[in-house]
Amino acid sequence: MTMSRALIGVLCLAIAEFAAAGMARAEDGHELWLRYQPVSEPMAAHYRQSASELVVADKTPTIAIAQEELVRGLSGMLGKPLSVVPAATQDGAVVLAVTGRSQAISDLRLPMAGLGDEGFLIRSATWQKHKVTVIAANTDVGVLYGAFRYLRQIQTRQSTADLDVRDMPRVKVRILNHWDTLVRFGANAAGMSLWDWSKLPAWRDPMYAEYARANASIGINAVVPNQINAEPEMMTPMYLRKVAALADVFRPYGIKIYLSARVTAPIQLGGLKTADPLDPAVKKWWADKVNEIYTYIPDFGGFLVKADSEGEPGPNEYKRTQADGANVLADALKPHGGILIWRAFVYSNDPNWDRVKQAYDVFTPLDGKFRDNVIVQVKNGPLDFQPREPFSPLFGGAPKTNIGMEVEVVKEYLGGATHLFYLGAYWQEVLETDTYAKGKGSLVASVIDGTVFNQRLTAFAGVANIGTDRDWCGSTFNQANWYSFGRLAWDPHASARVIAADWAAMTFTPDTAFIGPVVDTMMASREADADFMMPLGLAHQFATGHHYGPEPWGDSAPRADWRPVAYNGADKGGIGVNRTVTGTNYVSQYAPPVAARFSDLKRIDDKYLLWFHHLPWDYRMKSGLTLWDELMCHFDRGVTEVRKMQKTWAALKPYVDEQRFAKTTVFLAMQESEAVWWRDANIAYFQSVSGLPLPEGVAPPAHPLSWYKALNKELKYPVYPF
Amino acid sequence: MTMSRALIGVLCLAIAEFAAAGMARAEDGHELWLRYQPVSEPMAAHYRQSASELVVADKTPTIAIAQEELVRGLSGMLGKPLSVVPAATQDGAVVLAVTGRSQAISDLRLPMAGLGDEGFLIRSATWQKHKVTVIAANTDVGVLYGAFRYLRQIQTRQSTADLDVRDMPRVKVRILNHWDTLVRFGANAAGMSLWDWSKLPAWRDPMYAEYARANASIGINAVVPNQINAEPEMMTPMYLRKVAALADVFRPYGIKIYLSARVTAPIQLGGLKTADPLDPAVKKWWADKVNEIYTYIPDFGGFLVKADSEGEPGPNEYKRTQADGANVLADALKPHGGILIWRAFVYSNDPNWDRVKQAYDVFTPLDGKFRDNVIVQVKNGPLDFQPREPFSPLFGGAPKTNIGMEVEVVKEYLGGATHLFYLGAYWQEVLETDTYAKGKGSLVASVIDGTVFNQRLTAFAGVANIGTDRDWCGSTFNQANWYSFGRLAWDPHASARVIAADWAAMTFTPDTAFIGPVVDTMMASREADADFMMPLGLAHQFATGHHYGPEPWGDSAPRADWRPVAYNGADKGGIGVNRTVTGTNYVSQYAPPVAARFSDLKRIDDKYLLWFHHLPWDYRMKSGLTLWDELMCHFDRGVTEVRKMQKTWAALKPYVDEQRFAKTTVFLAMQESEAVWWRDANIAYFQSVSGLPLPEGVAPPAHPLSWYKALNKELKYPVYPF
Repeated sequence: MTMSRALIGVLCLAIAEFAAAGMARAEDGHELWLRYQPVSEPMAAHYRQSASELVVADKTPTIAIAQEELVRGLSGMLGKPLSVVPAATQDGAVVLAVTGRSQAISDLRLPMAGLGDEGFLIRSATWQKHKVTVIAANTDVGVLYGAFRYLRQIQTRQSTADLDVRDMPRVKVRILNHWDTLVRFGANAAGMSLWDWSKLPAWRDPMYAEYARANASIGINAVVPNQINAEPEMMTPMYLRKVAALADVFRPYGIKIYLSARVTAPIQLGGLKTADPLDPAVKKWWADKVNEIYTYIPDFGGFLVKADSEGEPGPNEYKRTQADGANVLADALKPHGGILIWRAFVYSNDPNWDRVKQAYDVFTPLDGKFRDNVIVQVKNGPLDFQPREPFSPLFGGAPKTNIGMEVEVVKEYLGGATHLFYLGAYWQEVLETDTYAKGKGSLVASVIDGTVFNQRLTAFAGVANIGTDRDWCGSTFNQANWYSFGRLAWDPHASARVIAADWAAMTFTPDTAFIGPVVDTMMASREADADFMMPLGLAHQFATGHHYGPEPWGDSAPRADWRPVAYNGADKGGIGVNRTVTGTNYVSQYAPPVAARFSDLKRIDDKYLLWFHHLPWDYRMKSGLTLWDELMCHFDRGVTEVRKMQKTWAALKPYVDEQRFAKTTVFLAMQESEAVWWRDANIAYFQSVSGLPLPEGVAPPAHPLSWYKALNKELKYPVYPF
Repeated sequence: MTMSRALIGVLCLAIAEFAAAGMARAEDGHELWLRYQPVSEPMAAHYRQSASELVVADKTPTIAIAQEELVRGLSGMLGKPLSVVPAATQDGAVVLAVTGRSQAISDLRLPMAGLGDEGFLIRSATWQKHKVTVIAANTDVGVLYGAFRYLRQIQTRQSTADLDVRDMPRVKVRILNHWDTLVRFGANAAGMSLWDWSKLPAWRDPMYAEYARANASIGINAVVPNQINAEPEMMTPMYLRKVAALADVFRPYGIKIYLSARVTAPIQLGGLKTADPLDPAVKKWWADKVNEIYTYIPDFGGFLVKADSEGEPGPNEYKRTQADGANVLADALKPHGGILIWRAFVYSNDPNWDRVKQAYDVFTPLDGKFRDNVIVQVKNGPLDFQPREPFSPLFGGAPKTNIGMEVEVVKEYLGGATHLFYLGAYWQEVLETDTYAKGKGSLVASVIDGTVFNQRLTAFAGVANIGTDRDWCGSTFNQANWYSFGRLAWDPHASARVIAADWAAMTFTPDTAFIGPVVDTMMASREADADFMMPLGLAHQFATGHHYGPEPWGDSAPRADWRPVAYNGADKGGIGVNRTVTGTNYVSQYAPPVAARFSDLKRIDDKYLLWFHHLPWDYRMKSGLTLWDELMCHFDRGVTEVRKMQKTWAALKPYVDEQRFAKTTVFLAMQESEAVWWRDANIAYFQSVSGLPLPEGVAPPAHPLSWYKALNKELKYPVYPF
């Protein structure tokens, strides 16, 4: 008996060591936040008490996935296989329960009302004479979400005793938009598009299910696989068969497929002479096409449309409104329960119409004119995912319209793949802003979750940063952006810091000596890039042609509103853009308390200053510094912050496997080089405009301005130039 | 003691099982043929006798790689750690020995002369009172090659007792050409380009070293990372820094970097008014540029050039010869020991000049006019990597020119990623053909390896099928093409069947019950695709715009020599292209015995028949069938062969892990669908031309010809259409 125990002990050690070695080999980031590393004692013993076996009564495809995840997760973390049984045989059983199919729910009279079709309950209870943990929901997918939630409890080292977790999503459509072409060019900074159309529907690459699993683990329930500059081929039978195969893979994970649709598809595919949304033949074409799509995908989610924007066609061409354009598609989808998502990213060629005003000007007159299955998808800011923007005034500005939020999970303007930039902190800044749309407390998050205007159909969309790179996102810290997008889409009121801590614990280690510094770094990363790129409300200072590298001198783009100089407004006298009543009057699109604060130089937050005001270089800031000196200090501070991030990361070496540590170390070094590049190019340019000396402590640029200009001419593609 | 042994036994079992489980999880093909799976007893015991420890005296970067590989391989296969020692301490030591640095070589008087700088010797001997196996070479890379060779001995279950292996490459430059753009579009059917220029030189992705290791394992010693339609940016300092970082990674693996160069670079980068190769400023520009490149990459290999072809500029524009164009670059490279590789794929717009004649017509008058560091790189056939072509008459046709061979490892015309098509069999068919250039026995292989014409500078180039797909090549069986390319470049006289058997043993299992059928299938795959696509010497029957799917009716391409109808010559009266003396007289480019055989209907091999002859439908074949009936039977037999391959593969399930088995199964099913598509489209079209009935046993097409024509119009991209 004693020998036997010793044997088992040694065996367990051996296996654990082998497992550890195996894991170490595989630390290429592919496992994301679902690594399920062994929990050390005595914590593991605690968890084992409430994870002795898994009770699964009826195994639907989704419940089978929940079961597989729990077996994989609990076995991996607790170091013993988990048996699956049809009924509880011992204390510590985990019971999966679906309303109407599980005795546990009725026996325990669990309060299932109000959980909807995606919420869940995790409750410790005594059932059939055993102490159990019930994961209960009204639907299979609710149980799946609950299973991931239960696993997270252990991954982040929370107790699993006396559980009473009740959770449900606050937003209905939590959707990833993939900006991927049919030839697999992905705007994700992480490799090719995941979707291998050339081999679908025959070959269903295993990565499709892995991707769906990761999404399900954070509650994402919708996917648009094709880019918003939609290729009409996607709606031909040949491609619909392929899309249907993807939908089949995604379905058990609770994920619906949507498609980007092109407004002119009736012409290109249908051979019609017009795509006028009010033309009866066009209406019929869309209705027929939608009916056809539902024969391939019975639970098709709906369409996403980019219209009248950046060269994409739209209803404007036929003198119709955006509502006319949206409603014809919405009507076609309605009988099937489909949803039409219409992007608010519309802007015209009128050079006298401040670009940041246009979406509001176009959509607020249409408030109330959209069908009830239409969502208008609005970017977080009025411009285009800049390092910082004030929230879009459409949040709160269209009370009778279903307004959804669109954010970029891909860091198009924020360092591409390499920079450590935690977007959770960025999004939280937007979400926690008060719109005052219905008085104080009308946070953007509360507009988005529907509570401010009793909006029933809600949406949170993220432009995906996911590609074929082995680590899915191009860097480990980019994974945090995918993760935090899912968590904030589930609950826009959630704390970015808590989410970061959960992610770091699951992705690396729950050791608090690691979590503290790494979460501080993630939260600080948000300001670092803003500082060296475009502080104090500057925007759009990127190189022309691609969004990589600084070009504050840029004045050659064909449209004035694509030129960096138009967004910094810098001249001998000062800097900034006047968007107050004396300027473009963009500020008036906000609710009066917000507009008043942005207009008032005494009350406006420094971080939005130059977005709203053109000010002289010697303007005295709240800090006591002149605007010039403060601007220079911000550029410099961005570099200092990145160097702090490097130092923090270097000290965390003991907590991180070699492979991921090395990659992040190199990426931080690249970020530092680019931060210096931005700082110096910014300083060189603005100094050439202002003619002012640098404040003490700010070093002059390494090269003259001409050097930075010459460098940009070499940058045909966005590549690291050093 | 007994308990302890039992304990160890159980432990070993446990670890082995865990390892097996771990391996099973990881069977995604990433490990290629370097999997090092455990050898079962008693074979493992045999191998352990001659692999007790590893003796490494001085650890250069390359020797360190050889050491790591042997430790990894022997530990993995023999189930015990391998210790590394500075001198032999026991019998069974493996000794790494480099001429001039190793006592073993002098002590044992090993015959190192003639091994050159890449050959090696593996010899069992007694040294310093121990039985050892010496892996000896004149250079570090020779030892690395020997290490892989020694490991292969075990991987393929050959004995390691009494070894006396002496091997060296027969071809000097064994080079992969990557047809990859700077934005990472790879023409490899296996994902993006491997080279992440956006993050180089700072970030050296671990896959670069993994790729170099795989190449070294099969003797590939040169790489061109950028496409032949060369982008001039590649030669700017920004990119040269990136290329230099790649070169640093490749160097210890014995791999040199070459670059594709654009003939007009002096204009585009240098600002010159001309790229005339005889212009002194142009010569100086190239000399300066080459000198600059060598400051970044001291062992830079040289240039690869595509000129005067498919829109690429070339010396013709300046009324200069291909030799003029090549020599200016060769002169610039010469002082550094660099090599200039000039592609023979030149053809003009002259519609009266049979395209397959042009390379020979252009290059043979220049024979003897190229510098001695120029290699003219000639495609295996005179057209363009078709399912079957006669060998290019430039093999044997230019005795005073360094002629290298170029093959496509990527299956551009052979089913892209999915089809099982073993190219080793295809290439062997070319290599073993007799050119009669210097009488009987002047095999293409002997031209290539330099023996026929005493050619000192030899080359074998493969257009790479390697991309970012997890399994590198898009399918497991595509890996066999990378592997066999390396093996045949090392020795063009090697047997494709032996190579296939080695590959299958290393990639799957050395079980002979598996190897036999899978090698038969690989060898048969070569004829299967030729049969259903274009048997009897037909060529270029692919859809216009991309090379996916059948279009024998194609007559719309802008150039006559891009149109399928020009290559089948089918009309009411018959089919084929007359390239005999009464036709285009292409046949006269061959040595007289070869020309005579191709011209003689009695002696020509059926497989080249319609390449050389236009014949009536009722022409009586050697089989006794009419040409029409035989053609139809070939189309049909291709499908039958694919179905046989499916059946064989299905029966091999017990030998293959689930993941790779499933993927190959699906790919074979796709190949079968496409085989039916080809057969039916071919039959439908040719029947519309001939008006003849199908022979017994050949089923009519599933659809009318119009259906296949309509399908092609939907195929904007090469995607699986079913």
